[in-house]
Amino acid sequence: MITLEMIQAAEKNLKGITRNTPLIQSAFINDEADIYIKCENLQVTGAFKLRGAYTKISSLSPEERKRGIVAASSGNHAQGVSLAARMLGIPATICMPDGAPISKVEGTKQNGAKVVQVPGVYDDAYEKAMQLVAEQGCTFIHPFNDERIITGQATLGLEIMEKLPDAEVVFVPIGGGGIASGVATAVKLINPDCKVYGVEPVGANCMQESLRLGKIEKLKEVHTMADGTAVKQPGNFTFEACRKYLDGIVTVTEEELATAMLLLLEKHKLVAEGAGALSVAAAMFPKVDLRGKKTVCIISGGNADVTTLSRIINKALQHTGRLVTLSVSMEDKPGQLMAMLEVVASAGGNVFSVNHDRMVGGVDVGVCVVDIVVETRDAAHRDELVGALKQKGFSLRVHS
Amino acid sequence: MITLEMIQAAEKNLKGITRNTPLIQSAFINDEADIYIKCENLQVTGAFKLRGAYTKISSLSPEERKRGIVAASSGNHAQGVSLAARMLGIPATICMPDGAPISKVEGTKQNGAKVVQVPGVYDDAYEKAMQLVAEQGCTFIHPFNDERIITGQATLGLEIMEKLPDAEVVFVPIGGGGIASGVATAVKLINPDCKVYGVEPVGANCMQESLRLGKIEKLKEVHTMADGTAVKQPGNFTFEACRKYLDGIVTVTEEELATAMLLLLEKHKLVAEGAGALSVAAAMFPKVDLRGKKTVCIISGGNADVTTLSRIINKALQHTGRLVTLSVSMEDKPGQLMAMLEVVASAGGNVFSVNHDRMVGGVDVGVCVVDIVVETRDAAHRDELVGALKQKGFSLRVHS
Repeated sequence: MITLEMIQAAEKNLKGITRNTPLIQSAFINDEADIYIKCENLQVTGAFKLRGAYTKISSLSPEERKRGIVAASSGNHAQGVSLAARMLGIPATICMPDGAPISKVEGTKQNGAKVVQVPGVYDDAYEKAMQLVAEQGCTFIHPFNDERIITGQATLGLEIMEKLPDAEVVFVPIGGGGIASGVATAVKLINPDCKVYGVEPVGANCMQESLRLGKIEKLKEVHTMADGTAVKQPGNFTFEACRKYLDGIVTVTEEELATAMLLLLEKHKLVAEGAGALSVAAAMFPKVDLRGKKTVCIISGGNADVTTLSRIINKALQHTGRLVTLSVSMEDKPGQLMAMLEVVASAGGNVFSVNHDRMVGGVDVGVCVVDIVVETRDAAHRDELVGALKQKGFSLRVHS
Repeated sequence: MITLEMIQAAEKNLKGITRNTPLIQSAFINDEADIYIKCENLQVTGAFKLRGAYTKISSLSPEERKRGIVAASSGNHAQGVSLAARMLGIPATICMPDGAPISKVEGTKQNGAKVVQVPGVYDDAYEKAMQLVAEQGCTFIHPFNDERIITGQATLGLEIMEKLPDAEVVFVPIGGGGIASGVATAVKLINPDCKVYGVEPVGANCMQESLRLGKIEKLKEVHTMADGTAVKQPGNFTFEACRKYLDGIVTVTEEELATAMLLLLEKHKLVAEGAGALSVAAAMFPKVDLRGKKTVCIISGGNADVTTLSRIINKALQHTGRLVTLSVSMEDKPGQLMAMLEVVASAGGNVFSVNHDRMVGGVDVGVCVVDIVVETRDAAHRDELVGALKQKGFSLRVHS
């Protein structure tokens, strides 16, 4: 049983180690509610994990510290554990699946941890970690199913209630349930009237299924871009805490998630990873009645790689008419391509790429098709450009 | 003459209006210095401009308020002025060049301002604003050359000195000089030992030139992606304040700027606009000796449009080996494309696009060239992929 005193002690212990991350009011997420975002993506290591990791590792006995620690992770937990271990001067070994992004492997090494790259996926890295525990007697640091880890994550809930004691709704993401258990415990111990909802991706809803069935359920597979929540099964500690303290679990789609990530980027100037944007998606596409309610969305982390960001941005650019792909049919005679480009330029379109292929099939003899990608200001500008081309006699197809 | 008392009064007046934005320690910008970033990109409207705009507009007399205000801007000043006017219930007209991004026009309209779109560039919008002042007797709100505007921006310096009284170096961006004048004034009045450096893009260094010549200089043209600092000439107030208080001006290149923007995005989870990243670039590629020094970089704003972000990310992805374009030559016979794609797939490359054009010139008969864009983990992975293709007999060219 985690008590308020335990969470307060953890908060004191984290002074100077973790940041009390900003809580910022948002005018963009939901017009009908009073929304605040807790920017845990601005935490040291870019995610909440350091709170739990440091709380756990600093509680080890001198004997345990000497034997060292081991963890399995491909992401945020690896960085949190390795940094906490370095701060405490404890040897750390992190087992990482060999598909883990090199940037995260490097980040973990830079924190002074020994990295063991294990062929396969997370489960294989976990097996390797267990083997090291058996052989070397070191302590395994679980990513979520540990009372001290949960107590550390609970300090996040404490910070929210200190700054916004009259919060009425809190959305918290769920992967294995560590952050959700911690935050729900802290919030409910301080203000039982504040509703706390867990948020899972539609394709990785192990806690929702487990609570529905009343027992820990293992999903066969998980599908989500929110890789921090791609967990098949909650732990017993997190299951019990979520059952006791959560007011419910809501799910969001991948498209809602991508839209929330883009909003955070464009409006709040913040990078959120998939798991980090779950709570914002739940408030944007409101999964419970938020009208008039003081609502907190926890952005749990920001470790999205730039490839993912780039994809989300490009998709959104197309969606909002700022990047448009056109197939323009024109007479197959000299000067036509230039004439078309002149229309595009004078309409203020900025050419991104041109693919002129006279061999392309499916059109009449004497006609050729040019595929052109153009940057436009918005949907209206795109329509204007299309209109100008049509007016000059080009027939074309707009790709969505 | 702006006094500390005036700045403190402005700070009091801004309570509940602007945010005291986070000051965050950075472990990523410069290993040899102790760097802090002042995240003014998290300010309401995404930039520092609201500080000055509200300070100025709230100082108007009842008569002036009734006649309304007018401003010329295509960006952050428009949003700051329109929001301040709405908060104070004052009618506002913003003249914007017609090339201004629709998102900023819409943002300004949403703040309740009347937007006049003027054909041409900023200078044309400025002329139009002057005409409105002459016709309607409304008050022109200058973007930087105004003592009250400067006093408002100075509150940013006050916040820094309150949180970090022993700061030794402050980097502040310069466009027209409003934020630099304000911050330098505040910092020097509190701690004359703290060095304050202005940062300009190499291609838009009007203040550097003016200080060097000892008089206000107008640049013929300006070239920079930091559009917030694309100003040809400082004002007399800002020139005098910068001459009096700045310890110097440093310049950064466009490439240094892009690198700083990417670092903020990847490591700090923050979107900075070009002008916003100038100070970070000056500390990353240290323009003065920072060794061992407590240094503050002011991220003045985050209003980069996503098209720009997408370009910076894509360039960086290529630069760091995470997006690679290959021209692969192969025998012109069935099955070769598939064989090549198999090598790419088994090396863990993720195909982004393929362009197979048998008509392409410049190669021998019996040979064709496929252009392929592949996502790789990093430069080492890219090299591994290239090696695997070569080993299978494909000859290829890697585009940088």
